[in-house]
Amino acid sequence: MTPPPAAGRAPYDAVELIRCKRDGGELEPAAVDWLLQAYTDGEVAEEQMAAMAMAVFFRGLTRAELGRWTAAMIASGERLDFSGLSRPTVDKHSTGGVGDKITLPLAPLVAACGVAVPQLSGRGLGHTGGTLDKLEAVPGWRAGLSNAEMLAQLEDVGAVICAAGSGLAPADKKLYALRDVTGTVESIPLIASSIMSKKIAEGTSALVLDVKVGTGAFMKDEADARALAETMVGLGQDAGVTTVALLTQMSSPLGLTAGNALEVQESVDVLAGGGPADVVELTLALAREMLGAAGRGDVDPAAALADGRAMDVWRRMIRAQGGDPDAPLPRARETEVVRAESDGVLTSLDAMAVGLAAWRLGAGRARREDSVQAGAGVELHVKPGDRVRAGDPVLTLHTDTPERFDRARAALEGGWSVGPEAPRAEPLVLARIA
Amino acid sequence: MTPPPAAGRAPYDAVELIRCKRDGGELEPAAVDWLLQAYTDGEVAEEQMAAMAMAVFFRGLTRAELGRWTAAMIASGERLDFSGLSRPTVDKHSTGGVGDKITLPLAPLVAACGVAVPQLSGRGLGHTGGTLDKLEAVPGWRAGLSNAEMLAQLEDVGAVICAAGSGLAPADKKLYALRDVTGTVESIPLIASSIMSKKIAEGTSALVLDVKVGTGAFMKDEADARALAETMVGLGQDAGVTTVALLTQMSSPLGLTAGNALEVQESVDVLAGGGPADVVELTLALAREMLGAAGRGDVDPAAALADGRAMDVWRRMIRAQGGDPDAPLPRARETEVVRAESDGVLTSLDAMAVGLAAWRLGAGRARREDSVQAGAGVELHVKPGDRVRAGDPVLTLHTDTPERFDRARAALEGGWSVGPEAPRAEPLVLARIA
Repeated sequence: MTPPPAAGRAPYDAVELIRCKRDGGELEPAAVDWLLQAYTDGEVAEEQMAAMAMAVFFRGLTRAELGRWTAAMIASGERLDFSGLSRPTVDKHSTGGVGDKITLPLAPLVAACGVAVPQLSGRGLGHTGGTLDKLEAVPGWRAGLSNAEMLAQLEDVGAVICAAGSGLAPADKKLYALRDVTGTVESIPLIASSIMSKKIAEGTSALVLDVKVGTGAFMKDEADARALAETMVGLGQDAGVTTVALLTQMSSPLGLTAGNALEVQESVDVLAGGGPADVVELTLALAREMLGAAGRGDVDPAAALADGRAMDVWRRMIRAQGGDPDAPLPRARETEVVRAESDGVLTSLDAMAVGLAAWRLGAGRARREDSVQAGAGVELHVKPGDRVRAGDPVLTLHTDTPERFDRARAALEGGWSVGPEAPRAEPLVLARIA
Repeated sequence: MTPPPAAGRAPYDAVELIRCKRDGGELEPAAVDWLLQAYTDGEVAEEQMAAMAMAVFFRGLTRAELGRWTAAMIASGERLDFSGLSRPTVDKHSTGGVGDKITLPLAPLVAACGVAVPQLSGRGLGHTGGTLDKLEAVPGWRAGLSNAEMLAQLEDVGAVICAAGSGLAPADKKLYALRDVTGTVESIPLIASSIMSKKIAEGTSALVLDVKVGTGAFMKDEADARALAETMVGLGQDAGVTTVALLTQMSSPLGLTAGNALEVQESVDVLAGGGPADVVELTLALAREMLGAAGRGDVDPAAALADGRAMDVWRRMIRAQGGDPDAPLPRARETEVVRAESDGVLTSLDAMAVGLAAWRLGAGRARREDSVQAGAGVELHVKPGDRVRAGDPVLTLHTDTPERFDRARAALEGGWSVGPEAPRAEPLVLARIA
């Protein structure tokens, strides 16, 4: 029982709002605005927002609540404006997977096709790796740019991959850190609003989402991934951003590498016209979606990859941020090879097992303040469906700290198998949601 | 994905425990112990416990978890020991209702029958009032006693009503304050463990619970109240405390007064052999249960009320804590009478409306740091079933601050009705759970 607010008191009471959501009610728009602003300002306490986040985990948010929640997180900070650029812009977001280095070849490829790509990224926490961690394996490259530097590089080079400034959606930054320590990460509306608030605040007019499904992804099953994709596409459309999502396979790793420098090398291979087929396929599929969303569906990205234009943009992009595209990439000091014990076909290679092994080898971090090893990771010599003979190398483990090999091998135990028959080939792109 | 704990790190991870409960799992006994101890020590953060409390709201606790949770809260602080007393002890707890002053006549009555009553109580927050607030209306009376003073008074007088020391179940104190601001009060296992941890830590060997049901109670419906009662009785039995619960009616106020000094006066009336029939009935019913639980079911409390022995103990109990049982009680400076507008029978008088009116008149507090008015409250002139004529007084409102009358009258609007036929008489005691 709460008395009506006296003059000068807050228009809402945090406890009443938590109880409303907890009991299955709907928060009115002004209440959502107040909640997020008061939380950002410290007037609503961390423990109150934690209880609210858990109530949202159980009760969800209606589409109206979710739109308002996202808008309130955007309104908590600055918005970038790319409307002064001479080209359209398009952004891409992946929900994260093992070996997912696609942003590295994709951003320069799309830029080479005449559409600017502002890719504000994060560092990795957990087994899926972060785009900035990967690029930091390039000697000299730096992730931090001012807004003015970013805009200048977008105009000049056409592509920029850099750290998101702290001015974008501070309510989301605060809420994400809270969810991380309170067991409230796994909520579709909270995930969707977190991703979309940053992307909408970045000011892009088009957005392509790569929603991963499988053991190595955040979303283990397709129904959840589809629900997340549909929620994000709806939020984007409601905010006036042309948004398309692809649901893509993440049961086995993407490409042949998981690790920072290893993935940069594979990306450069793709830009040079080679690289693993699945990485090339997904890069082109996402590039076509991005060009289409930006109104340039007529341009064929395959040509820009084949004739070296994408590689040119990559080299300029790396140089613009202090990196040397010709410098040798770091390599781990120690390697160990994991071999097949029998003849047959590789029937499975679990993405989660490989991601966990790479993480334990030093490619990822357990805590935000940890550093990563540039050279650490897992290299694949075969993919599911490939033939192997007893004694053939299946994986090579890379690390600077050989005491990590044991725990990496333990992560891989049961994570791959050799059998008599090839597994059924699964498509890489499972669905498209627009 | 959490790495196994390294040497020297906590044996459990708060986030993993929250996720376990969130997803419907059961916490193992040592995990519950760790959680409550780490929370008391500040190692588990307030926001983590808030998320856990909300997960418990939705998922509940198993009987094993609940027993361990309660034991861990008890283990966080000191335990009192009454085993050195020359008499058995029995305690009583009410979940709180409007006009519920029963502890005041009950404690001296049971003591007069040869069983010691250590009644550690709280102050009121909300519309149901606190026992200490009521007794503080007695000039000179003080609530704070040391453990030694309390034991001496129990041996000498046989009854003590005082403030619970801060050493009992500090984990519960911290958790209750957190639940209060995070919308997680209304959880049966959390309510049950909060009440029972304090009562078991007090060291009583028998306990009688008065679980209120109705509009003026915390539990609005009988099924919830029964579930809470059964949970608490189970917890008490599991901890070796003989525990009995009565479910009692709280749709209309108990007795004819709601307010601090007003309720003390009514209690003294009961001890003098008068007072409203329902207060006398419930006092005797609870006294019989308490005596039975303490192994003295042969003693008739009605005799001790009738022959003045209970009044003698009351006077000694008040004096022992600095109070003057003969001093006139404070009276509010202003009164207003609410009158019937037509002839008929009082068909309803809503406990919540009366509680809210008393609260708004100054008898209760909105914030823990507020003070209360000793004289404020609501006096009833009729009870449901009584005949009234147009113009007859139904209620008298008491306050020192007449600007409060309007909001008190607003609280009472629709809260009582006069009709042609008497309502069906409801029993005061709805059920007994042992």
